[in-house]
Amino acid sequence: MSYTFELTTRYSDTAQDKIIHHSSYIVYLEEARLAYMQSKNFFIHELEAKGYTVPVVNLSINYIKPLLSLQNIVIQVKTLNITKVRFTFSYQIFCNQILVTEAISEHCLLDEKFKPMRLPLEFRNIFLQC
Amino acid sequence: MSYTFELTTRYSDTAQDKIIHHSSYIVYLEEARLAYMQSKNFFIHELEAKGYTVPVVNLSINYIKPLLSLQNIVIQVKTLNITKVRFTFSYQIFCNQILVTEAISEHCLLDEKFKPMRLPLEFRNIFLQC
Amino acid sequence: MSYTFELTTRYSDTAQDKIIHHSSYIVYLEEARLAYMQSKNFFIHELEAKGYTVPVVNLSINYIKPLLSLQNIVIQVKTLNITKVRFTFSYQIFCNQILVTEAISEHCLLDEKFKPMRLPLEFRNIFLQC
Amino acid sequence: MSYTFELTTRYSDTAQDKIIHHSSYIVYLEEARLAYMQSKNFFIHELEAKGYTVPVVNLSINYIKPLLSLQNIVIQVKTLNITKVRFTFSYQIFCNQILVTEAISEHCLLDEKFKPMRLPLEFRNIFLQC
Repeated sequence: MSYTFELTTRYSDTAQDKIIHHSSYIVYLEEARLAYMQSKNFFIHELEAKGYTVPVVNLSINYIKPLLSLQNIVIQVKTLNITKVRFTFSYQIFCNQILVTEAISEHCLLDEKFKPMRLPLEFRNIFLQC
Repeated sequence: MSYTFELTTRYSDTAQDKIIHHSSYIVYLEEARLAYMQSKNFFIHELEAKGYTVPVVNLSINYIKPLLSLQNIVIQVKTLNITKVRFTFSYQIFCNQILVTEAISEHCLLDEKFKPMRLPLEFRNIFLQC
Repeated sequence: MSYTFELTTRYSDTAQDKIIHHSSYIVYLEEARLAYMQSKNFFIHELEAKGYTVPVVNLSINYIKPLLSLQNIVIQVKTLNITKVRFTFSYQIFCNQILVTEAISEHCLLDEKFKPMRLPLEFRNIFLQC
Repeated sequence: MSYTFELTTRYSDTAQDKIIHHSSYIVYLEEARLAYMQSKNFFIHELEAKGYTVPVVNLSINYIKPLLSLQNIVIQVKTLNITKVRFTFSYQIFCNQILVTEAISEHCLLDEKFKPMRLPLEFRNIFLQC
């Protein structure tokens, strides 16, 4: 089951080649990821209030077709894998029903000294079922 | 006496109209401002470690000529005014010796509850002389 | 009569001081401005297809209260002034019904050689009435 | 033989978790890549003036250690592979001589209709030798 997030690409996300800059997709994926996590009751502000940092550890992205500004896109996010210390989400971005981007992001939790931590059990349980 | 900061405009700072996006100048001004403050021994990391937030309160900017990507620019920063609670810097951006932008930014210090504070005396003393 | 645009501030729009970076507001204002212009049938892509660049000439912004990430904000845009060569919009940003930012942006049209042009009559007529 | 590019991470490149946002690395890699290509006499402005777009097709990045703002980093770029239609660069980012990030980006050339093109022979020849 994937989670669906919609947004409109911004004018300022383009560069002089008139297409959406490849760094802006990373921001779109994060918006979708945080909304997906929030839909499972994991709100980034609460994780951070507990002292966690939730960094991206690995990211891979396949830019299939260019996006232009002010296009409506749909991002499908789902859990790909979860271990005791890492969780991995996969993404597909569609524009006009056409797949334009695929991506995978892997994450961990760091404590206040930036040391990797075990994922909380309830976190694992919820995303294992996704 | 103004402080001089140099940088090269980035490809990703353009938008589809092929000129540097007006929001990117704001980032350039901040880079120059932090370097200027650091030259006076006020390092943003230290101010924040003491619990201060140093927000922009007012910003005005006059975009005189468009900038393109990968251009070398020179930013001149100086103190325009300083009161008990506010400090104001002015900026000029030059490209090929031509003035392309003028700006003014006004700042204050907030405490950990986001309440405005008196500027520390040593801070005032140093920037009053600039 | 003002035009209303809504958005949610992004995680990535913050900086290490935990508040929305002052440069991100500029992007929000542009999103609202382009939507406002589009509501009057002036679509930036069409203006650019005719060879125009639509730069910001002057920008002033008063940051009244800090914004945090993932907050829902409302931007009110309206026409403040329009001359033969310049048009000026004003903005108010609200969060939880509280005014957090006020801004003014002034714009012109440039031709393909970046020379200022007279505003098209239909453009002036429509925004004069706003 | 790798090409070396140096930069200072920016305050505005952080997010509220106080580390450099993972999307900002993408911008750093591009700065290094364009400087590397320019060192081989391929200037992005000239490629674009000939009608080419030079998109990123694939990107993978391994964030090994977090970066903070205002840190001096060194980026090593080199050619990893080049085919008739694709070229691939690899990157290592160092901070205080410690490897903090590894990345690979794959690129192609698009013509004015966004169709993939054969790489120009001189382009292939130069980067094959790198």
